Amino acid sequence: MDNSEKTTQESGLGTRPWQALREVVNRGSAEQLQQFLDDLPAGEMARAVSRLDDGDQIKLMVRLRPEMAAELVDGVSEAQAVELLELLPVRDVAAILQELESDEQADILSELDESDLEAILAAMDPGKAANARRLAEYLPETAGGLMITELLCYRDDLTVQDVLDDLRQGAEQYSDYDVQYAYVVQGSSVKHDSPTSAGDFGRLVGVLRLRDLVLSSAEKRIADVAIQETLAVHTQSTLDELAAFFDRHHFFGVLVVDAENHLVGVVRRYDVEEALADRADDDHLKLLGIIAGEELRTMPLSSRAGRRLAWLVPNIMLNVIAISVIAYYEATLAQVVALAILLPLISDMGGNAGVQALAVSIREMNLGLLRPHELIWVTLKESSVGLLNGLVLGVLVAAGSWIWQQNLYLGLVVGVAMLLNTLIATTVGGLMPLVLKRMNIDPALASGPILTTITDMTGFFFVLSLATLVLPQLVGSGP
Amino acid sequence: MDNSEKTTQESGLGTRPWQALREVVNRGSAEQLQQFLDDLPAGEMARAVSRLDDGDQIKLMVRLRPEMAAELVDGVSEAQAVELLELLPVRDVAAILQELESDEQADILSELDESDLEAILAAMDPGKAANARRLAEYLPETAGGLMITELLCYRDDLTVQDVLDDLRQGAEQYSDYDVQYAYVVQGSSVKHDSPTSAGDFGRLVGVLRLRDLVLSSAEKRIADVAIQETLAVHTQSTLDELAAFFDRHHFFGVLVVDAENHLVGVVRRYDVEEALADRADDDHLKLLGIIAGEELRTMPLSSRAGRRLAWLVPNIMLNVIAISVIAYYEATLAQVVALAILLPLISDMGGNAGVQALAVSIREMNLGLLRPHELIWVTLKESSVGLLNGLVLGVLVAAGSWIWQQNLYLGLVVGVAMLLNTLIATTVGGLMPLVLKRMNIDPALASGPILTTITDMTGFFFVLSLATLVLPQLVGSGP
Repeated sequence: MDNSEKTTQESGLGTRPWQALREVVNRGSAEQLQQFLDDLPAGEMARAVSRLDDGDQIKLMVRLRPEMAAELVDGVSEAQAVELLELLPVRDVAAILQELESDEQADILSELDESDLEAILAAMDPGKAANARRLAEYLPETAGGLMITELLCYRDDLTVQDVLDDLRQGAEQYSDYDVQYAYVVQGSSVKHDSPTSAGDFGRLVGVLRLRDLVLSSAEKRIADVAIQETLAVHTQSTLDELAAFFDRHHFFGVLVVDAENHLVGVVRRYDVEEALADRADDDHLKLLGIIAGEELRTMPLSSRAGRRLAWLVPNIMLNVIAISVIAYYEATLAQVVALAILLPLISDMGGNAGVQALAVSIREMNLGLLRPHELIWVTLKESSVGLLNGLVLGVLVAAGSWIWQQNLYLGLVVGVAMLLNTLIATTVGGLMPLVLKRMNIDPALASGPILTTITDMTGFFFVLSLATLVLPQLVGSGP
Repeated sequence: MDNSEKTTQESGLGTRPWQALREVVNRGSAEQLQQFLDDLPAGEMARAVSRLDDGDQIKLMVRLRPEMAAELVDGVSEAQAVELLELLPVRDVAAILQELESDEQADILSELDESDLEAILAAMDPGKAANARRLAEYLPETAGGLMITELLCYRDDLTVQDVLDDLRQGAEQYSDYDVQYAYVVQGSSVKHDSPTSAGDFGRLVGVLRLRDLVLSSAEKRIADVAIQETLAVHTQSTLDELAAFFDRHHFFGVLVVDAENHLVGVVRRYDVEEALADRADDDHLKLLGIIAGEELRTMPLSSRAGRRLAWLVPNIMLNVIAISVIAYYEATLAQVVALAILLPLISDMGGNAGVQALAVSIREMNLGLLRPHELIWVTLKESSVGLLNGLVLGVLVAAGSWIWQQNLYLGLVVGVAMLLNTLIATTVGGLMPLVLKRMNIDPALASGPILTTITDMTGFFFVLSLATLVLPQLVGSGP
């Protein structure tokens, strides 16, 4: 119970956790190091490790036993785990990887440097390497990519007593397994799975709940105790399909079968929830312009700057396209400088209104409430909001501009431009993710920059073209 | 296995799922309705239900048995669930709510209209109502708010056989429970919990794993079979602390204790993952300007427009502050119209660079890699990236402007302004979430608008003040 009392405050002595960790890494025994990590408050480990310099991170990882290093790798985010492992010699990476669960292995292998991959797999236990290689081939956001292959599998001709005996004998080996369920398959040669023999477990007969095993007489055949009617997903099932499945069914996991309906693994509910959280986080970062994967501030400066420039530089190009509209109306602008002051207001508000609609579309697609072909539905729903909000915003800025410059026509130009631009920005913003999705472009990545370029262009166009129409009424008034 | 074959394609006949559902709701029997919902592909239900009009949604919910309606409520997002329930009479809401798990009950109750709350609680089973009321008092992103109270609890003086007998007798009642674990508490008067008697379960002695129960002899006392050393969290533990806990420990759930170390509930791993996904989604929506909770397009127009205006209108004010800087330099602008064309480029790029840094800070705080007091660390890390990226972007726009207007001084003004603005925007963007967090303002909500107002102001200021300094060199050149 003591752990519940721990705080995440730094110690009153002013020593930061990573300073103490560096001390232990460099001067303490292996046991002291392990003890120190165990004693760190739950929320502190990731930060303490990330703030060590590369040399100390290597020392730390190499001094820990592989099981302990694997626990550490498992306890930090994937980006941080990859950063840590890429520092280490191939042999150490292999030793740590094979202590991880099969889905974690596959995830991390797919993120590691391509060139080290073969060497790492060669240094791993051959069975585990083969399994990891196979799992790494599934797309990450599918049932195949999310499943674990550590599961208990028994032939359908065994009895309840046989299974209980095996569980008793294998208690040590199964300690990391989720043994709430075991799976009954048609008579194959394996009695049960060990992680090294993962692959095709055979045709599924049913699911054996541990609780049913407890409550059944020992001589019964497990095929008769197992639940016969079982739901399963295919290896290619998408994350959205899995999310919908777990929304409907109160299961902790779902079986994964291949094209021949053979059992190949299990996807657990929390792995699906975790993948959804990661995707939301990822979409979010992309929309905010961090395109090249997850940035951590402990990464090298050149890599951090490069990841951000990869979006900033193309964005200059998009901006140049947008401001070319202003350049086209330079003559109008030269005569009514007040317009130059108002241009950023109209374009910025259009971007804001568009991004709101865009966010709703991305979210509704993720929740399964919207399909990419429903362009008319979105157009109807967004144009009504756009019209209403455009009216409100248009009246506000028209009144403001009129009072400021004492020119009714300027107020009308700005107000009508705001109305039209809000209407278009809201509608285009709502449609953009659907259109991109149908073109197989990631909406989170491309929607924002394309949208704001369009809304900037339309905003500039509406203000300046309307102003050009009533130019005589605008010139010569105001300061 | 048939369910694995289902596709999420709409039927080739052109009938949309909600058209078919409307048909069944209005003309089918209760059994046909249930069958139709069961047969809908996993990803289709939420959309089909959301597209019914209010009248049909009411008919649908009222015709389903409460258990089935509860399953439907459980299978859609919380925003959609609340929308559905608010249509129904109080008595129906109460009947449906008490079929949900305790944490779901509390979540939905806290979202429902304040005025209906007491009437709904009064119509519920008194025990369940008391429990829901108690749970609703915990903050949503704490262990108390995330925990369930449905757990199996046994007195420490019982034997293994007693527990097995109880499990056998209660098999029906426990069918919805997670019975992988049972909990051993100091001799209290309850033998085991039923959901209505939830509350304080007593002082915890240990955790009983079902697998250990199976493998132990029947006459042993459960106190001797239970795992003695158990980790627990407090009811006030935050979502971040829970996330860190589950990152470190491979548990499916963690015990929750109150200030007296008495067991009050269990938080499951997947509830934590789900809460993290919701928070990421929520932060995301707020940063994109949808502040008033989760919008769905099936909500009424006035509510949707209002939610968005709540952010757009204050944003006009922020824009007015920013463009007042341009107004101050109106004289300069009147002499060099090219500046008016370049202003949106500089301010937009500053906003982009700042938002990148902002996203990294929010993410690192959520991952536990950054604490709100680490202003110096972030300043060092961000100013270096800002300087490097500012140099690259500054050179690009300086060269472009020079070539465009054939004026070296204009190129220098724009390039230096871009460099300085990128440096400041990047640093301020990185710091903003930390500062707001320390002021107890939600960084996701306030960071974006405040940041872009600042970067607009600094961008306009750098371009126009530098231009004013070298005004004689700028005037008279160009077209």
